[in-house]
Amino acid sequence: MLTDNIRKPTLVLDEAKCRRNIRFMADKARNSKVFFRPHFKTHQSVIIGNWFKDEGIHSITVSSVTMASYFSTHGWRDITIAFPLNFREIDEVKKISYNTQINILTSSYEHLKILEEKINFEAGCFIKIDTGYKRTGVDWSDYNQLLRMIDLLFKNKHLRVKGFLLHSGHSYSARSTDEIIKIYEDSLSKTEEIKKKITCPGMIFSIGDTPSCSIVEDLSGYNEIRPGNFVFYDLMQHQLGSCKKENIAVAVYCPVVDINYKRNEVLIYGGAVHLSKEYLIINEESKRVFGEVAFPSENGWFFPEERMFVKSVTQEHGIISVPESCIRKFKRGELIAIVPVHSCLTVDLLREYHTFDGRIIKDLSPK
Amino acid sequence: MLTDNIRKPTLVLDEAKCRRNIRFMADKARNSKVFFRPHFKTHQSVIIGNWFKDEGIHSITVSSVTMASYFSTHGWRDITIAFPLNFREIDEVKKISYNTQINILTSSYEHLKILEEKINFEAGCFIKIDTGYKRTGVDWSDYNQLLRMIDLLFKNKHLRVKGFLLHSGHSYSARSTDEIIKIYEDSLSKTEEIKKKITCPGMIFSIGDTPSCSIVEDLSGYNEIRPGNFVFYDLMQHQLGSCKKENIAVAVYCPVVDINYKRNEVLIYGGAVHLSKEYLIINEESKRVFGEVAFPSENGWFFPEERMFVKSVTQEHGIISVPESCIRKFKRGELIAIVPVHSCLTVDLLREYHTFDGRIIKDLSPK
Repeated sequence: MLTDNIRKPTLVLDEAKCRRNIRFMADKARNSKVFFRPHFKTHQSVIIGNWFKDEGIHSITVSSVTMASYFSTHGWRDITIAFPLNFREIDEVKKISYNTQINILTSSYEHLKILEEKINFEAGCFIKIDTGYKRTGVDWSDYNQLLRMIDLLFKNKHLRVKGFLLHSGHSYSARSTDEIIKIYEDSLSKTEEIKKKITCPGMIFSIGDTPSCSIVEDLSGYNEIRPGNFVFYDLMQHQLGSCKKENIAVAVYCPVVDINYKRNEVLIYGGAVHLSKEYLIINEESKRVFGEVAFPSENGWFFPEERMFVKSVTQEHGIISVPESCIRKFKRGELIAIVPVHSCLTVDLLREYHTFDGRIIKDLSPK
Repeated sequence: MLTDNIRKPTLVLDEAKCRRNIRFMADKARNSKVFFRPHFKTHQSVIIGNWFKDEGIHSITVSSVTMASYFSTHGWRDITIAFPLNFREIDEVKKISYNTQINILTSSYEHLKILEEKINFEAGCFIKIDTGYKRTGVDWSDYNQLLRMIDLLFKNKHLRVKGFLLHSGHSYSARSTDEIIKIYEDSLSKTEEIKKKITCPGMIFSIGDTPSCSIVEDLSGYNEIRPGNFVFYDLMQHQLGSCKKENIAVAVYCPVVDINYKRNEVLIYGGAVHLSKEYLIINEESKRVFGEVAFPSENGWFFPEERMFVKSVTQEHGIISVPESCIRKFKRGELIAIVPVHSCLTVDLLREYHTFDGRIIKDLSPK
């Protein structure tokens, strides 16, 4: 059994759940008639990438040039780097473009001005637009800037205009699925406004966030979707309503080290260097939580009736707060499964997956 | 120049500052006549370990069995694992003990009861006591439990009682150096009470936290100190008053990718997978900060007159909030230095150090 060989915090991946998540999103894209270009920043793995190939996926999104280089080396031939081009890496992007269709991203007129002067290889180019998240990109209503950018792109002999890339990251702050749907619809109506003002044929409108892509039934208002986190989901997505707990495909198995019966707390080996310091507020009164407790079973994990959480983490320590009635469920030396708040960060920290059939998947993109 | 070769977020180490920090703490330990057993969880590196050897240090502390194994393999012969023993790793500890003096930690009577039944090799054993942090260990005033534990230890043929290990981690929540000194003095007076009640000769009282060890002048109330973070310090330690900004020995060099002149924000390539999601509240009104901006110079970095901070991070993105008067200091394609909030987590994420003389130190302990 997998658990017999686990001595320290270990990232366990439920392949069946993961493949179901991939199929769910691929089906939704097909039904909505949108192109599916999944983001690989969450799993970062060539092996898991193959599970996407099994669903007919051959075009991907990544968040760094290093990741683009890694997946290109492993045979992926159509990659969007969904991060405004870092000019210090332009030579690296050029190398990737020799055998791979690369799309890059620009996020302002000034950024594009530098880009179009520097570029000396063929690449597709998306314009990042901001419909409310306020992280990067051109404000959606700044048509003047958008038109000047498209103009620059059309004149440039290396860059091909691909379209507009959106990321409604503010959906992560939503309090309900209704609010997520509203954010989606708001972005969509802004997209429609842009289409009225900027009438270029063949422009792709591409969206990214897992909450919208998971919750909204019909995504046909866009041409392309780029969700990433859905491959595993996590506690944050569950709280947002993007998934059921049963869809979460990763957990960190952690040894129970000691138990404090006075405070009803369990000390686990499993801390900030395994789970990250990402936290959630589960309900108004509650404090931060850094993961939820589940218990390993033969080929999975199950959630106890009463929810229990990791209430604090330091470098290697995690402390679980336990109702008095449940404290006897924990035994020193046994393993528990911690479902992470944010699977992207947990995967990036642990960098190897253990599956129930005894495989260890270690082939992640370098950072 | 180092910066010429940096394309993406890169951990830069100022060796001179780091060596000064090591010397400062080694001198303080000598002057206070306490044994110096530095914690290696912050740097995790054999090369940096050698800089401690240059100061005559041969005994260390680590936070995991994996780290103990790593440093033992590299010739360290006296190691305390300052984490309550994880029973699933006891065989690994046994292997280390063949050629290394290993001290392990126990944190409750029930934990020790299992330990003393399982152990079949020689090891020193510290009892973790809790003087107010409430993470792990026996409440300092629970003399009954402490005496029963010492009794068990004396009867066990493999375990040698070493003493009591404290970690005043609550000093990290202090608001002033005076408060840190108070926490130190409070722990010390509790220690004195224990010494009155438990009169075993030769017991070591060992403390750990960097704030106390940095700020308190005379540490002679204890027998041993185990600070770790001081090797680099960071923004959190600076805010606590443990160090000057000039003592911080690491920074993450990040490319400036784009600039938003409307919002006065700078987008850097450098996010949660480089800096971690650890944050600080710098002053009452301010929001979270994930790092402070400095500018690279030939062999170091300098802080601008007006403080600027990373205001948000996602996986690869960092956003810096900039006063309008300073926005022209930033140029797309240039590097800035981000001084991290918590160097332990940043090092664990980036796992290689670049020094000003062009070396790359990659030999970190596996996780």
